[in-house]
Amino acid sequence: MKNTSELLCLLALFLLAMPCAGDVSTVDLVVQGDYVVTMDSDNTVIRDGVVIIDDGRIIKVGASSELLPLFKAREHFAGQHKVVMPGLVNGHSHAAMTLLRGIADDLSLFEWLNHYIFPAEVTFADEEFVRVGTQLACWEMTRGGTTTFVDMYYHPAVIAKVVDQCGMRAMVSATIIGQKSPDAEDAEDSINNARDFVEGHLQKYPRVIPILGPHSNYTLNADQLKKSRALSTSLAVPISIHMAESPYEMKYSLEHYDKRSVEMYESIGFLLGPTIAAHMVWPNESEIGILAERKVGVIYNPTSNMKTAAGVSPVTAMLDAGVLIGLGTDGAASNNDLDMWEEMRLGALLQKVNTMDPEALGARQVLAMATINGAKAIGLADEIGSLEVGKKADLIQVAFTDPHHVPAYDIISHLVYVTDEQDVATVVVDGRVLMRERELLFLNEEEIRTQAGLIAQRIKTKLNIE
Amino acid sequence: MKNTSELLCLLALFLLAMPCAGDVSTVDLVVQGDYVVTMDSDNTVIRDGVVIIDDGRIIKVGASSELLPLFKAREHFAGQHKVVMPGLVNGHSHAAMTLLRGIADDLSLFEWLNHYIFPAEVTFADEEFVRVGTQLACWEMTRGGTTTFVDMYYHPAVIAKVVDQCGMRAMVSATIIGQKSPDAEDAEDSINNARDFVEGHLQKYPRVIPILGPHSNYTLNADQLKKSRALSTSLAVPISIHMAESPYEMKYSLEHYDKRSVEMYESIGFLLGPTIAAHMVWPNESEIGILAERKVGVIYNPTSNMKTAAGVSPVTAMLDAGVLIGLGTDGAASNNDLDMWEEMRLGALLQKVNTMDPEALGARQVLAMATINGAKAIGLADEIGSLEVGKKADLIQVAFTDPHHVPAYDIISHLVYVTDEQDVATVVVDGRVLMRERELLFLNEEEIRTQAGLIAQRIKTKLNIE
Repeated sequence: MKNTSELLCLLALFLLAMPCAGDVSTVDLVVQGDYVVTMDSDNTVIRDGVVIIDDGRIIKVGASSELLPLFKAREHFAGQHKVVMPGLVNGHSHAAMTLLRGIADDLSLFEWLNHYIFPAEVTFADEEFVRVGTQLACWEMTRGGTTTFVDMYYHPAVIAKVVDQCGMRAMVSATIIGQKSPDAEDAEDSINNARDFVEGHLQKYPRVIPILGPHSNYTLNADQLKKSRALSTSLAVPISIHMAESPYEMKYSLEHYDKRSVEMYESIGFLLGPTIAAHMVWPNESEIGILAERKVGVIYNPTSNMKTAAGVSPVTAMLDAGVLIGLGTDGAASNNDLDMWEEMRLGALLQKVNTMDPEALGARQVLAMATINGAKAIGLADEIGSLEVGKKADLIQVAFTDPHHVPAYDIISHLVYVTDEQDVATVVVDGRVLMRERELLFLNEEEIRTQAGLIAQRIKTKLNIE
Repeated sequence: MKNTSELLCLLALFLLAMPCAGDVSTVDLVVQGDYVVTMDSDNTVIRDGVVIIDDGRIIKVGASSELLPLFKAREHFAGQHKVVMPGLVNGHSHAAMTLLRGIADDLSLFEWLNHYIFPAEVTFADEEFVRVGTQLACWEMTRGGTTTFVDMYYHPAVIAKVVDQCGMRAMVSATIIGQKSPDAEDAEDSINNARDFVEGHLQKYPRVIPILGPHSNYTLNADQLKKSRALSTSLAVPISIHMAESPYEMKYSLEHYDKRSVEMYESIGFLLGPTIAAHMVWPNESEIGILAERKVGVIYNPTSNMKTAAGVSPVTAMLDAGVLIGLGTDGAASNNDLDMWEEMRLGALLQKVNTMDPEALGARQVLAMATINGAKAIGLADEIGSLEVGKKADLIQVAFTDPHHVPAYDIISHLVYVTDEQDVATVVVDGRVLMRERELLFLNEEEIRTQAGLIAQRIKTKLNIE
């Protein structure tokens, strides 16, 4: 009798543990991985894990053995030799400048800007240029695993439309700039245009957040910067800006405002609203304190800072002070691509050699910058940046099949120091698959290639580039 | 009559210009490209060009329209969306350390070496480790377009055999090192072993050049370094060595020899024979003069120097002084891969930010370091490093199909600032195809992956790595 009751008891436990047919829910998407790197606050990495996605959001994250029996998926991505992680957040870009990549490298800033970039932009940066250049950038960024970017360029309505069509997520800044000089009237026009853009796009596209992009304190004066902030407050949108980038800017700021750059912004109350400040190479200790206090989201752009010889951002000091830091590529003209894996690797390496400390900015910290901390820096961490229940399903699968990933001691270290964008296999944004086994689903690649080639040919002819 | 004779004359000219059937030679290989980047002394880049290869050597380089009618190839690589260029020369590696990549990152040099690298090597760096690790490295390097590397590790006979089997070209250094201390007897043993290795391998394999690899002046004393040089002279082979790499070495050199590192080598006559000196982060102005005068081949290892926080090599000053400079990855444990494209990009960017000059170390200079100047630095420029008639046919095709190569203003700039190793489509060494459209022909990838995994598992268990 005892044996029978024990057996019945075991049978009951077994039945309880088994999912009943009625318990299997049908969901949109199941994405598995040998490892799921969640980037949650505990840095949880799940061996043989899975992310369950429905209606654009993550509804479960956990071990495959536990979760797979509970869900039936409309589409299922297997996980062998794959790492699942949040999509990358590119905190600062000028997407359409892909059309100017490599147009003129290894030149002084003056020659580069005045003989190539500005003439090309003045003549060519029309709506078609921005449409094709942004499409090219979205193609490149999607293939590299970037799912969200913060853009700043001309014709923001065109950028917003491209983002909507290609399936990515973006904050699109309406650029506010005094093209002729900081005191010229065109800056006023550009403030009005920016207001119109933001007002017209607040609810227009589901994955596009319109924001304001006052360019800098050397292309706008203090009055225009104050107006930009006032507009940002009245529209309740953040600002994206270049700040403390170069020795040129620092000199300009001291000469024109008698203050260092961050000090100048602080003195006019500019930092009292949400601010995404790109580059931030030259803050001193007291300015770093201001950035932390004002919760400025700093975007570190190591490749661009090195290529233009702007300097080395004091990232470790800012982190110590509690400053929020994300990562960005800047435009392709000063990079020359939009590869966030390179930014991670380079970002870490540059801090190590600059501080002469191999422990500086480790792989975990820089991976966070490209994901959850980047999301925090741009104010979107409630929705994206980590794989947690309730968040938007923005995630990627990275294939660990190339020899450079063999052997696998430390997944995080490999992601930062080894992975190339071409290792990215699958890209999902808002629960929708944008790339499946490296095949893009929402962009006509050959059409973009052809149109980009035609625009490049016109630019070459105009600028007498061989 | 006049018209008829004119016509006959034109016909004669036409027939002369046409290749007769008898003029068509059959050759081994024809490799075409939209661009052929020769890296010859005029930096010739040929639009719609072709390289004609027979019996392991380049017999013609020129325009496709001129050369294609003259040759019939046993194998023909078409050139659309392809750039043809010399194979990359990795001037400093420890190939088998691929098995230790990512084992322990973001640590102080002391902790990294003493808690991870040395214990792993002491226990595991046996012949099987070196065989599998070198195979893994050859797999990775071939897929990335490296055709020649200068290696330094234990069990050089095993390395040489792997190189022979995988089809690459290498200088294999027999490591000479005092493992226990610079004054211990094991250094003497290692000199004898090195002699045996070189003598036994001078003619053993066609693409393997055995050389000597005294490790450094902090693992060998002055007497052992002098013996190494004497042996190099008597065997008529070059030396590969670490030199002026780190603050640790500089301190050691001053304390033990009362001289800076390069000064110390010069003072004992070590630099009087052919020397490949890796890292070279800390030469001062007078030492740079010594390097130029002694025609030392310096190998710049930007990633490793940044990752270990060794410092920034004064590359632009050395170039100004006429020092020969090539490029290298170092071992994968301090990189964490063997990607020469990353070294080029990073090498250029690091010099720009370090000198605060965006014109420093341009794309053309750094591409030369990875090809012809690397070949000069290791003493092989008569045979490899450029696409010129008579040289060994070591070359690659790079696919310009990924969006990051669109549009194409400047091929050289794209190769340095954009290209990833996964863009490499075709690899030819010694006229033999090692990779065809990314498919390797001489390595069993799955076997290497499995064996590397097993070794890694043993190391993880031993070192208590999760």
